[in-house]
Amino acid sequence: MAHIALDNDLPGISGLMAHRKDTGEPLNHLAEILLRGPSPISRGERELIAAYVSQLNATPFCAGSHSAFAAAQLAGGERLVASVLADPATAPITPLLRALLRIAAEVQSAAAPVSDEAVAAARAEGAGDTEIHDTVLIAAAFCLYNRYVSGLATTVPDADYYRGSAERIVARGYRGSYSEA
Amino acid sequence: MAHIALDNDLPGISGLMAHRKDTGEPLNHLAEILLRGPSPISRGERELIAAYVSQLNATPFCAGSHSAFAAAQLAGGERLVASVLADPATAPITPLLRALLRIAAEVQSAAAPVSDEAVAAARAEGAGDTEIHDTVLIAAAFCLYNRYVSGLATTVPDADYYRGSAERIVARGYRGSYSEA
Repeated sequence: MAHIALDNDLPGISGLMAHRKDTGEPLNHLAEILLRGPSPISRGERELIAAYVSQLNATPFCAGSHSAFAAAQLAGGERLVASVLADPATAPITPLLRALLRIAAEVQSAAAPVSDEAVAAARAEGAGDTEIHDTVLIAAAFCLYNRYVSGLATTVPDADYYRGSAERIVARGYRGSYSEA
Repeated sequence: MAHIALDNDLPGISGLMAHRKDTGEPLNHLAEILLRGPSPISRGERELIAAYVSQLNATPFCAGSHSAFAAAQLAGGERLVASVLADPATAPITPLLRALLRIAAEVQSAAAPVSDEAVAAARAEGAGDTEIHDTVLIAAAFCLYNRYVSGLATTVPDADYYRGSAERIVARGYRGSYSEA
């Protein structure tokens, strides 16, 4: 049971966002820009970064949701996502995405400068300032979302829930989706 | 030097927000609601929670900024803020604020459910669901802001900078301030 009473029965962050529309609005706006707005990193790859950070933070609702959103937008589907969550080092992804996941893991672990080595490794694989910025901010944002969802002890749904959410998010995005989720 | 080139010379998150107005807008909107919007926790006390979490995350720009914003809006001023950052257990604050700072520290430390003990202790001092929600989300949000500012290795200004920022934030808020900061 969640630490606070909600005005709805929705799981995870969906329940919090529907309950508190004042904070839900900028949180969804941020997710929309970070995960679906213009970026040199594809939508599927950005969802994969979000899923990976959520798994490192041990937040099942966000890891399950963003894994489903990534799988729906990547050619490799659920199998590719599972291989990345199991071990980015051996997953069949581009060296650039692997380098960005390393940066994301550093951001997840502490509020400290990303190492010069991790930045240099990403640049060596073709990352520019925008890839580095977007990766850092996605990873930082999921340190917020994960703490909000886990900190308040919100409920976790069945796995089927995430596939339904994926259909809505891919079709309508974060700002058009949560209020009816 | 920051890990990415910015289109301005502003320090900390101000430089990032001016450089990336697309993500700066929801990040400022969120800060405005969390720290200055309606809440049973006063504006000064919310800034104090933000400063405390930023200090736990060892992010000097955010700790300095929000300490100044708290001092400008609390009767105890800079001295009170310093005593809280030194040790909330002995600082001259209400038992309720002390209990909320304990919740904030738990959120800062990991994306895990706040302990039942910390929630019960806050409720025993008068916290309702809104105080608990707002404290958790402020602490979670500063785990984002701190990682964004520290992760990208942004610059830290002189201490005088924070007092100037405090005048602008108190007078005009987060959404009216950053683009000219």
